[in-house]
Amino acid sequence: MLTNNHKKLIRALKQKKQRDQHGLFVAEGPKVVGEFLAAGYALQHLFTVDTSLFPGQPCIPVTEAELSAVSYLTTANACLAVFACADNKPLPASGLTVALDGVRDPGNLGTIIRLCDWFGITQLMCSQDTVDCYNPKVVQATMGSLARVNVVYTDLPGYLTDTKLPIFGTFMDGGSVYQANLPAEGVLVMGNEANGIRPEVEALVTSRISIPRFGALQATESLNVATATAILLSEFKRGSG
Amino acid sequence: MLTNNHKKLIRALKQKKQRDQHGLFVAEGPKVVGEFLAAGYALQHLFTVDTSLFPGQPCIPVTEAELSAVSYLTTANACLAVFACADNKPLPASGLTVALDGVRDPGNLGTIIRLCDWFGITQLMCSQDTVDCYNPKVVQATMGSLARVNVVYTDLPGYLTDTKLPIFGTFMDGGSVYQANLPAEGVLVMGNEANGIRPEVEALVTSRISIPRFGALQATESLNVATATAILLSEFKRGSG
Repeated sequence: MLTNNHKKLIRALKQKKQRDQHGLFVAEGPKVVGEFLAAGYALQHLFTVDTSLFPGQPCIPVTEAELSAVSYLTTANACLAVFACADNKPLPASGLTVALDGVRDPGNLGTIIRLCDWFGITQLMCSQDTVDCYNPKVVQATMGSLARVNVVYTDLPGYLTDTKLPIFGTFMDGGSVYQANLPAEGVLVMGNEANGIRPEVEALVTSRISIPRFGALQATESLNVATATAILLSEFKRGSG
Repeated sequence: MLTNNHKKLIRALKQKKQRDQHGLFVAEGPKVVGEFLAAGYALQHLFTVDTSLFPGQPCIPVTEAELSAVSYLTTANACLAVFACADNKPLPASGLTVALDGVRDPGNLGTIIRLCDWFGITQLMCSQDTVDCYNPKVVQATMGSLARVNVVYTDLPGYLTDTKLPIFGTFMDGGSVYQANLPAEGVLVMGNEANGIRPEVEALVTSRISIPRFGALQATESLNVATATAILLSEFKRGSG
Protein backbone atom coordinates (compact mmCIF):
# COMPACT_ATOMS: atom_id res chain seq x y z
CA MET A 1 0.00 0.00 0.00
CA LEU A 2 0.91 3.65 -0.44
CA THR A 3 2.07 5.44 2.70
CA ASN A 4 1.50 9.13 3.24
CA ASN A 5 5.19 9.70 2.59
CA HIS A 6 4.88 7.98 -0.79
CA LYS A 7 1.89 10.14 -1.67
CA LYS A 8 3.69 13.28 -0.57
CA LEU A 9 6.78 12.39 -2.63
CA ILE A 10 4.81 11.61 -5.79
CA ARG A 11 2.86 14.84 -5.47
CA ALA A 12 6.07 16.80 -4.91
CA LEU A 13 7.80 15.35 -7.99
CA LYS A 14 5.33 17.12 -10.26
CA GLN A 15 7.43 20.25 -9.66
CA LYS A 16 10.84 20.79 -11.21
CA LYS A 17 12.26 22.30 -8.03
CA GLN A 18 11.31 19.20 -6.07
CA ARG A 19 12.65 16.87 -8.78
CA ASP A 20 15.96 18.73 -8.64
CA GLN A 21 16.09 18.54 -4.85
CA HIS A 22 15.24 14.83 -4.69
CA GLY A 23 17.02 13.86 -7.92
CA LEU A 24 13.97 11.74 -8.72
CA PHE A 25 11.19 11.61 -11.31
CA VAL A 26 7.96 9.72 -12.00
CA ALA A 27 7.22 7.39 -14.92
CA GLU A 28 3.88 5.67 -15.48
CA GLY A 29 2.47 2.70 -17.34
CA PRO A 30 4.04 -0.71 -18.12
CA LYS A 31 5.56 0.43 -21.42
CA VAL A 32 7.29 3.58 -20.16
CA VAL A 33 8.34 2.09 -16.79
CA GLY A 34 9.63 -1.01 -18.60
CA GLU A 35 11.85 1.13 -20.88
CA PHE A 36 13.54 2.85 -17.92
CA LEU A 37 14.08 -0.49 -16.18
CA ALA A 38 15.55 -1.97 -19.37
CA ALA A 39 17.89 1.02 -19.70
CA GLY A 40 19.17 0.51 -16.14
CA TYR A 41 17.71 3.58 -14.46
CA ALA A 42 17.94 3.30 -10.65
CA LEU A 43 14.49 2.35 -9.35
CA GLN A 44 13.41 3.92 -6.06
CA HIS A 45 9.80 2.79 -5.82
CA LEU A 46 7.53 0.72 -8.03
CA PHE A 47 3.82 0.82 -7.24
CA THR A 48 1.71 -1.59 -9.22
CA VAL A 49 -1.78 -3.08 -9.28
CA ASP A 50 -0.33 -6.25 -10.84
CA THR A 51 2.72 -7.67 -9.07
CA SER A 52 3.46 -10.01 -12.00
CA LEU A 53 4.21 -7.08 -14.36
CA PHE A 54 7.95 -6.86 -13.68
CA PRO A 55 9.26 -10.19 -12.35
CA GLY A 56 12.30 -9.81 -10.11
CA GLN A 57 11.68 -6.12 -9.38
CA PRO A 58 10.81 -5.12 -5.83
CA CYS A 59 7.30 -3.73 -6.07
CA ILE A 60 4.69 -2.34 -3.74
CA PRO A 61 1.19 -3.68 -4.47
CA VAL A 62 -1.47 -0.98 -4.58
CA THR A 63 -5.18 -0.93 -5.40
CA GLU A 64 -6.61 0.70 -8.53
CA ALA A 65 -8.11 3.40 -6.31
CA GLU A 66 -4.77 4.12 -4.62
CA LEU A 67 -3.02 4.36 -7.98
CA SER A 68 -5.70 6.64 -9.46
CA ALA A 69 -5.38 8.96 -6.49
CA VAL A 70 -1.66 9.62 -7.08
CA SER A 71 -1.39 9.16 -10.87
CA TYR A 72 -0.53 12.22 -12.97
CA LEU A 73 -2.48 10.71 -15.87
CA THR A 74 -6.16 11.25 -16.60
CA THR A 75 -6.49 7.47 -16.51
CA ALA A 76 -3.98 5.64 -14.33
CA ASN A 77 -2.20 2.81 -16.13
CA ALA A 78 -1.37 -0.25 -13.98
CA CYS A 79 1.87 1.06 -12.43
CA LEU A 80 3.80 4.13 -11.33
CA ALA A 81 7.53 4.17 -10.68
CA VAL A 82 9.92 6.65 -9.10
CA PHE A 83 13.38 6.61 -10.66
CA ALA A 84 16.62 8.51 -10.01
CA CYS A 85 17.32 11.17 -12.67
CA ALA A 86 20.31 10.27 -14.84
CA ASP A 87 23.33 12.51 -14.39
CA ASN A 88 23.97 12.86 -18.12
CA LYS A 89 27.33 14.15 -19.34
CA PRO A 90 28.08 15.14 -22.94
CA LEU A 91 29.25 12.22 -25.08
CA PRO A 92 32.20 12.59 -27.47
CA ALA A 93 30.81 14.13 -30.66
CA SER A 94 29.66 11.44 -33.09
CA GLY A 95 27.12 11.55 -35.89
CA LEU A 96 24.42 14.17 -35.69
CA THR A 97 23.62 16.00 -32.44
CA VAL A 98 20.37 17.91 -31.95
CA ALA A 99 20.52 21.11 -29.85
CA LEU A 100 17.43 22.89 -28.50
CA ASP A 101 17.47 26.62 -27.85
CA GLY A 102 14.63 27.28 -25.41
CA VAL A 103 11.99 24.75 -26.45
CA ARG A 104 9.28 25.24 -23.80
CA ASP A 105 6.39 22.92 -24.59
CA PRO A 106 6.63 19.49 -22.89
CA GLY A 107 4.79 17.79 -25.76
CA ASN A 108 7.28 19.20 -28.27
CA LEU A 109 10.31 18.07 -26.24
CA GLY A 110 8.76 14.63 -25.79
CA THR A 111 8.13 14.31 -29.53
CA ILE A 112 11.66 15.47 -30.35
CA ILE A 113 13.21 12.92 -27.95
CA ARG A 114 11.13 10.17 -29.61
CA LEU A 115 12.30 11.39 -33.04
CA CYS A 116 15.94 11.35 -31.89
CA ASP A 117 15.49 7.75 -30.78
CA TRP A 118 13.91 6.81 -34.14
CA PHE A 119 16.65 8.45 -36.19
CA GLY A 120 19.52 7.12 -34.07
CA ILE A 121 20.48 10.52 -32.59
CA THR A 122 22.00 9.56 -29.24
CA GLN A 123 22.62 13.04 -27.89
CA LEU A 124 20.29 15.99 -27.34
CA MET A 125 21.88 19.19 -25.99
CA CYS A 126 19.41 21.60 -24.36
CA SER A 127 19.79 25.23 -23.30
CA GLN A 128 19.17 25.72 -19.58
CA ASP A 129 15.75 27.26 -20.29
CA THR A 130 14.52 24.32 -22.33
CA VAL A 131 11.69 22.50 -20.52
CA ASP A 132 12.90 19.81 -18.06
CA CYS A 133 13.06 16.37 -19.68
CA TYR A 134 11.80 14.81 -16.41
CA ASN A 135 8.63 16.91 -16.57
CA PRO A 136 5.91 14.21 -16.38
CA LYS A 137 4.36 15.30 -19.70
CA VAL A 138 7.74 14.94 -21.41
CA VAL A 139 8.42 11.53 -19.85
CA GLN A 140 5.06 10.17 -21.02
CA ALA A 141 5.23 11.81 -24.48
CA THR A 142 8.57 10.12 -25.18
CA MET A 143 6.91 6.71 -24.76
CA GLY A 144 10.10 5.57 -23.01
CA SER A 145 12.53 6.93 -25.63
CA LEU A 146 13.93 9.24 -22.94
CA ALA A 147 15.63 6.17 -21.47
CA ARG A 148 17.75 5.84 -24.64
CA VAL A 149 18.66 9.44 -25.54
CA ASN A 150 21.42 11.30 -23.67
CA VAL A 151 19.70 14.59 -22.81
CA VAL A 152 22.18 17.16 -21.47
CA TYR A 153 21.33 20.66 -20.18
CA THR A 154 24.15 23.05 -20.85
CA ASP A 155 25.25 26.58 -21.66
CA LEU A 156 24.32 26.27 -25.33
CA PRO A 157 26.41 29.16 -26.75
CA GLY A 158 29.42 27.75 -24.86
CA TYR A 159 28.85 24.26 -26.26
CA LEU A 160 28.44 25.57 -29.80
CA THR A 161 31.55 27.74 -29.50
CA ASP A 162 33.60 24.71 -28.48
CA THR A 163 32.42 22.28 -31.15
CA LYS A 164 34.35 21.90 -34.38
CA LEU A 165 31.35 20.43 -36.20
CA PRO A 166 29.22 22.39 -38.68
CA ILE A 167 26.20 23.97 -36.98
CA PHE A 168 22.86 24.00 -38.83
CA GLY A 169 19.94 26.25 -37.96
CA THR A 170 16.63 26.99 -39.71
CA PHE A 171 15.83 30.54 -40.76
CA MET A 172 13.32 32.03 -43.19
CA ASP A 173 16.19 33.22 -45.40
CA GLY A 174 18.12 29.92 -45.25
CA GLY A 175 18.83 27.79 -48.30
CA SER A 176 16.42 24.93 -49.08
CA VAL A 177 17.25 21.88 -46.96
CA TYR A 178 16.36 19.78 -50.02
CA GLN A 179 19.33 21.22 -51.88
CA ALA A 180 21.73 21.50 -48.93
CA ASN A 181 24.80 19.34 -48.47
CA LEU A 182 24.02 17.58 -45.19
CA PRO A 183 27.00 15.86 -43.56
CA ALA A 184 26.83 12.76 -41.34
CA GLU A 185 28.42 14.73 -38.49
CA GLY A 186 27.09 18.03 -37.27
CA VAL A 187 24.81 19.88 -34.88
CA LEU A 188 21.22 20.79 -35.75
CA VAL A 189 19.86 23.68 -33.66
CA MET A 190 16.09 24.06 -33.21
CA GLY A 191 14.68 27.22 -31.63
CA ASN A 192 11.96 28.35 -29.26
CA GLU A 193 8.28 27.93 -30.31
CA ALA A 194 7.58 31.68 -30.47
CA ASN A 195 10.94 33.35 -30.96
CA GLY A 196 13.06 30.83 -32.84
CA ILE A 197 16.82 30.77 -32.34
CA ARG A 198 18.33 33.48 -30.07
CA PRO A 199 20.69 36.02 -31.66
CA GLU A 200 23.72 34.79 -29.65
CA VAL A 201 23.10 31.23 -30.87
CA GLU A 202 22.28 32.40 -34.41
CA ALA A 203 25.73 34.04 -34.55
CA LEU A 204 27.31 30.60 -34.10
CA VAL A 205 25.29 28.87 -36.84
CA THR A 206 27.52 28.00 -39.82
CA SER A 207 24.79 26.78 -42.23
CA ARG A 208 21.45 28.57 -42.53
CA ILE A 209 18.79 26.25 -43.93
CA SER A 210 15.01 26.34 -44.40
CA ILE A 211 12.14 23.98 -45.16
CA PRO A 212 10.49 25.27 -48.35
CA ARG A 213 6.79 26.05 -48.19
CA PHE A 214 4.58 24.74 -51.00
CA GLY A 215 1.24 26.25 -50.01
CA ALA A 216 -0.45 29.41 -51.25
CA LEU A 217 1.04 32.81 -50.45
CA GLN A 218 -1.36 33.27 -47.54
CA ALA A 219 -0.53 29.81 -46.12
CA THR A 220 0.75 29.23 -42.61
CA GLU A 221 4.05 31.02 -42.05
CA SER A 222 5.62 28.43 -39.78
CA LEU A 223 5.75 24.80 -38.83
CA ASN A 224 5.59 23.50 -35.28
CA VAL A 225 9.13 22.88 -33.94
CA ALA A 226 8.53 19.14 -33.50
CA THR A 227 7.24 18.62 -37.06
CA ALA A 228 10.09 20.76 -38.43
CA THR A 229 12.56 18.57 -36.50
CA ALA A 230 10.93 15.47 -38.01
CA ILE A 231 11.40 16.79 -41.55
CA LEU A 232 14.99 17.92 -40.95
CA LEU A 233 16.14 14.68 -39.28
CA SER A 234 14.59 12.74 -42.15
CA GLU A 235 16.56 14.88 -44.62
CA PHE A 236 19.83 14.42 -42.73
CA LYS A 237 19.35 10.65 -42.56
CA ARG A 238 17.60 9.71 -45.82
CA GLY A 239 20.84 9.43 -47.78
CA SER A 240 21.95 6.56 -45.56
CA GLY A 241 18.52 4.84 -45.63
CA MET B 1 -21.50 42.75 -23.20
CA LEU B 2 -22.14 39.02 -23.15
CA THR B 3 -25.75 37.99 -22.61
CA ASN B 4 -26.71 34.76 -20.90
CA ASN B 5 -27.70 33.35 -24.28
CA HIS B 6 -24.22 34.09 -25.63
CA LYS B 7 -22.63 32.37 -22.65
CA LYS B 8 -24.92 29.38 -23.03
CA LEU B 9 -24.15 29.08 -26.74
CA ILE B 10 -20.37 29.31 -26.29
CA ARG B 11 -20.47 26.71 -23.53
CA ALA B 12 -22.64 24.42 -25.68
CA LEU B 13 -20.29 24.62 -28.69
CA LYS B 14 -17.60 22.79 -26.76
CA GLN B 15 -19.55 19.62 -27.56
CA LYS B 16 -19.62 18.03 -31.00
CA LYS B 17 -23.32 17.23 -30.76
CA GLN B 18 -24.13 20.87 -30.11
CA ARG B 19 -21.79 22.06 -32.89
CA ASP B 20 -23.59 19.71 -35.29
CA GLN B 21 -27.01 20.94 -34.16
CA HIS B 22 -26.13 24.63 -34.38
CA GLY B 23 -23.76 24.32 -37.35
CA LEU B 24 -21.42 26.68 -35.47
CA PHE B 25 -17.97 26.58 -33.90
CA VAL B 26 -15.72 28.80 -31.78
CA ALA B 27 -12.36 30.31 -32.75
CA GLU B 28 -10.20 32.42 -30.42
CA GLY B 29 -7.41 34.96 -30.63
CA PRO B 30 -6.72 37.66 -33.25
CA LYS B 31 -4.56 35.39 -35.43
CA VAL B 32 -6.98 32.45 -35.66
CA VAL B 33 -10.15 34.59 -35.87
CA GLY B 34 -8.45 36.75 -38.51
CA GLU B 35 -7.70 33.71 -40.69
CA PHE B 36 -11.35 32.58 -40.71
CA LEU B 37 -12.52 36.12 -41.52
CA ALA B 38 -9.97 36.35 -44.35
CA ALA B 39 -11.15 33.00 -45.73
CA GLY B 40 -14.75 34.24 -45.82
CA TYR B 41 -16.26 32.08 -43.06
CA ALA B 42 -19.71 33.36 -42.04
CA LEU B 43 -19.34 35.25 -38.77
CA GLN B 44 -22.16 34.89 -36.23
CA HIS B 45 -20.72 36.70 -33.22
CA LEU B 46 -17.44 38.46 -32.51
CA PHE B 47 -16.67 39.27 -28.89
CA THR B 48 -13.62 41.38 -28.34
CA VAL B 49 -11.90 43.42 -25.64
CA ASP B 50 -10.48 45.70 -28.36
CA THR B 51 -13.03 46.94 -30.90
CA SER B 52 -10.28 48.21 -33.22
CA LEU B 53 -9.00 44.66 -33.88
CA PHE B 54 -11.14 43.96 -36.93
CA PRO B 55 -12.24 47.21 -38.57
CA GLY B 56 -15.52 46.90 -40.44
CA GLN B 57 -16.60 43.74 -38.60
CA PRO B 58 -19.66 43.93 -36.33
CA CYS B 59 -18.29 43.23 -32.87
CA ILE B 60 -19.58 43.04 -29.35
CA PRO B 61 -17.28 44.76 -26.85
CA VAL B 62 -16.61 42.68 -23.73
CA THR B 63 -14.42 43.09 -20.68
CA GLU B 64 -11.33 40.95 -20.00
CA ALA B 65 -13.23 39.31 -17.15
CA GLU B 66 -16.21 38.48 -19.37
CA LEU B 67 -13.95 37.00 -22.02
CA SER B 68 -11.97 34.95 -19.50
CA ALA B 69 -15.19 33.52 -18.11
CA VAL B 70 -16.28 32.06 -21.47
CA SER B 71 -12.90 31.37 -23.13
CA TYR B 72 -11.92 27.74 -23.78
CA LEU B 73 -8.25 28.72 -23.46
CA THR B 74 -6.21 28.70 -20.25
CA THR B 75 -5.47 32.34 -20.98
CA ALA B 76 -8.10 34.21 -22.99
CA ASN B 77 -6.68 36.04 -25.99
CA ALA B 78 -8.36 39.38 -26.84
CA CYS B 79 -11.29 37.97 -28.85
CA LEU B 80 -13.62 35.03 -29.35
CA ALA B 81 -15.70 34.46 -32.47
CA VAL B 82 -18.54 32.13 -33.38
CA PHE B 83 -18.51 31.08 -37.04
CA ALA B 84 -20.72 28.86 -39.19
CA CYS B 85 -19.11 25.51 -40.00
CA ALA B 86 -18.19 25.18 -43.68
CA ASP B 87 -20.22 22.66 -45.63
CA ASN B 88 -17.18 21.19 -47.38
CA LYS B 89 -17.66 19.01 -50.45
CA PRO B 90 -14.92 16.92 -52.07
CA LEU B 91 -12.93 18.85 -54.68
CA PRO B 92 -12.01 17.29 -58.03
CA ALA B 93 -8.86 15.23 -57.45
CA SER B 94 -5.73 17.29 -58.02
CA GLY B 95 -2.23 16.90 -56.62
CA LEU B 96 -1.82 14.98 -53.42
CA THR B 97 -4.76 14.29 -51.08
CA VAL B 98 -4.26 13.23 -47.46
CA ALA B 99 -6.79 10.78 -46.00
CA LEU B 100 -7.11 10.06 -42.28
CA ASP B 101 -8.41 6.71 -41.05
CA GLY B 102 -9.59 7.28 -37.49
CA VAL B 103 -7.12 9.88 -36.17
CA ARG B 104 -8.51 10.64 -32.70
CA ASP B 105 -6.22 13.14 -31.01
CA PRO B 106 -7.21 16.81 -31.60
CA GLY B 107 -3.57 17.96 -31.39
CA ASN B 108 -2.58 15.47 -34.10
CA LEU B 109 -5.40 16.53 -36.43
CA GLY B 110 -4.55 20.19 -35.85
CA THR B 111 -0.88 19.59 -36.65
CA ILE B 112 -1.77 17.59 -39.78
CA ILE B 113 -4.07 20.38 -41.06
CA ARG B 114 -1.24 22.90 -40.52
CA LEU B 115 1.15 20.58 -42.40
CA CYS B 116 -1.33 20.27 -45.29
CA ASP B 117 -1.48 24.05 -45.50
CA TRP B 118 2.35 24.30 -45.50
CA PHE B 119 2.79 21.67 -48.20
CA GLY B 120 0.00 22.97 -50.42
CA ILE B 121 -2.36 20.02 -49.83
CA THR B 122 -5.79 21.56 -50.33
CA GLN B 123 -7.90 18.55 -49.45
CA LEU B 124 -8.02 16.35 -46.35
CA MET B 125 -10.45 13.41 -46.42
CA CYS B 126 -11.38 12.05 -42.99
CA SER B 127 -13.15 8.86 -41.96
CA GLN B 128 -16.34 9.53 -39.99
CA ASP B 129 -14.64 8.50 -36.73
CA THR B 130 -11.75 10.96 -37.15
CA VAL B 131 -11.92 13.70 -34.49
CA ASP B 132 -14.10 16.68 -35.47
CA CYS B 133 -12.08 19.45 -37.14
CA TYR B 134 -14.21 22.05 -35.31
CA ASN B 135 -13.20 20.64 -31.93
CA PRO B 136 -11.78 23.75 -30.18
CA LYS B 137 -8.39 22.08 -29.62
CA VAL B 138 -8.14 21.31 -33.34
CA VAL B 139 -9.19 24.82 -34.37
CA GLN B 140 -6.53 26.41 -32.12
CA ALA B 141 -3.80 23.87 -32.99
CA THR B 142 -4.19 24.64 -36.71
CA MET B 143 -3.27 28.30 -36.03
CA GLY B 144 -5.89 29.24 -38.62
CA SER B 145 -4.77 26.80 -41.31
CA LEU B 146 -8.17 25.09 -41.00
CA ALA B 147 -9.59 28.08 -42.88
CA ARG B 148 -7.54 27.12 -45.96
CA VAL B 149 -7.76 23.31 -46.09
CA ASN B 150 -10.88 21.59 -47.41
CA VAL B 151 -11.59 19.03 -44.65
CA VAL B 152 -14.26 16.52 -45.72
CA TYR B 153 -15.73 13.74 -43.56
CA THR B 154 -16.70 10.77 -45.66
CA ASP B 155 -17.06 7.02 -45.94
CA LEU B 156 -13.33 6.46 -46.44
CA PRO B 157 -13.42 2.96 -47.99
CA GLY B 158 -16.07 4.24 -50.45
CA TYR B 159 -13.93 7.26 -51.38
CA LEU B 160 -10.83 5.11 -51.87
CA THR B 161 -12.76 2.58 -53.94
CA ASP B 162 -13.93 5.34 -56.28
CA THR B 163 -10.60 7.10 -56.81
CA LYS B 164 -8.40 6.19 -59.75
CA LEU B 165 -5.29 7.64 -58.08
CA PRO B 166 -2.58 5.50 -56.47
CA ILE B 167 -3.20 5.05 -52.73
CA PHE B 168 -0.21 5.11 -50.37
CA GLY B 169 -0.24 3.79 -46.83
CA THR B 170 2.52 3.22 -44.24
CA PHE B 171 3.11 -0.27 -42.89
CA MET B 172 6.02 -1.88 -41.05
CA ASP B 173 6.63 -4.16 -44.06
CA GLY B 174 6.35 -1.35 -46.65
CA GLY B 175 9.20 -0.33 -48.93
CA SER B 176 11.38 2.61 -47.83
CA VAL B 177 9.72 5.91 -48.70
CA TYR B 178 13.22 7.22 -49.51
CA GLN B 179 13.44 4.77 -52.43
CA ALA B 180 9.78 4.88 -53.50
CA ASN B 181 8.53 6.48 -56.68
CA LEU B 182 6.23 9.21 -55.35
CA PRO B 183 3.89 10.73 -57.95
CA ALA B 184 2.56 14.28 -57.90
CA GLU B 185 -1.01 12.94 -57.79
CA GLY B 186 -2.18 10.40 -55.27
CA VAL B 187 -3.78 9.74 -51.91
CA LEU B 188 -1.71 9.31 -48.73
CA VAL B 189 -3.59 7.42 -45.99
CA MET B 190 -2.56 7.90 -42.35
CA GLY B 191 -4.01 5.61 -39.67
CA ASN B 192 -5.23 5.71 -36.10
CA GLU B 193 -2.77 6.48 -33.28
CA ALA B 194 -3.04 3.05 -31.64
CA ASN B 195 -4.26 0.72 -34.39
CA GLY B 196 -2.95 2.19 -37.62
CA ILE B 197 -4.89 1.68 -40.84
CA ARG B 198 -8.00 -0.52 -40.68
CA PRO B 199 -8.01 -3.83 -42.64
CA GLU B 200 -10.79 -2.65 -45.01
CA VAL B 201 -8.79 0.47 -45.86
CA GLU B 202 -5.50 -1.46 -46.01
CA ALA B 203 -7.05 -3.68 -48.68
CA LEU B 204 -7.46 -0.59 -50.91
CA VAL B 205 -3.87 0.64 -50.52
CA THR B 206 -1.93 0.22 -53.77
CA SER B 207 1.56 1.20 -52.49
CA ARG B 208 2.83 0.07 -49.09
CA ILE B 209 5.58 2.35 -47.82
CA SER B 210 7.48 2.83 -44.57
CA ILE B 211 9.76 5.37 -42.91
CA PRO B 212 13.05 3.59 -42.16
CA ARG B 213 14.22 3.58 -38.57
CA PHE B 214 17.87 4.45 -37.92
CA GLY B 215 18.03 3.94 -34.14
CA ALA B 216 19.25 0.92 -32.18
CA LEU B 217 17.31 -2.35 -32.29
CA GLN B 218 15.56 -1.51 -29.03
CA ALA B 219 14.61 1.99 -30.24
CA THR B 220 11.03 3.26 -30.36
CA GLU B 221 8.88 1.11 -32.62
CA SER B 222 6.72 3.89 -33.98
CA LEU B 223 6.46 7.57 -34.78
CA ASN B 224 3.58 9.80 -33.78
CA VAL B 225 1.08 10.09 -36.68
CA ALA B 226 1.62 13.86 -37.04
CA THR B 227 5.43 13.60 -37.24
CA ALA B 228 5.11 10.67 -39.67
CA THR B 229 2.81 12.82 -41.82
CA ALA B 230 5.41 15.61 -41.74
CA ILE B 231 8.15 13.30 -43.01
CA LEU B 232 5.97 11.73 -45.71
CA LEU B 233 4.61 15.03 -47.06
CA SER B 234 8.16 16.37 -47.19
CA GLU B 235 9.21 13.29 -49.21
CA PHE B 236 6.29 13.63 -51.64
CA LYS B 237 7.03 17.32 -52.19
CA ARG B 238 10.83 17.64 -51.99
CA GLY B 239 11.34 16.75 -55.64
CA SER B 240 9.46 19.88 -56.67
CA GLY B 241 11.18 22.12 -54.05
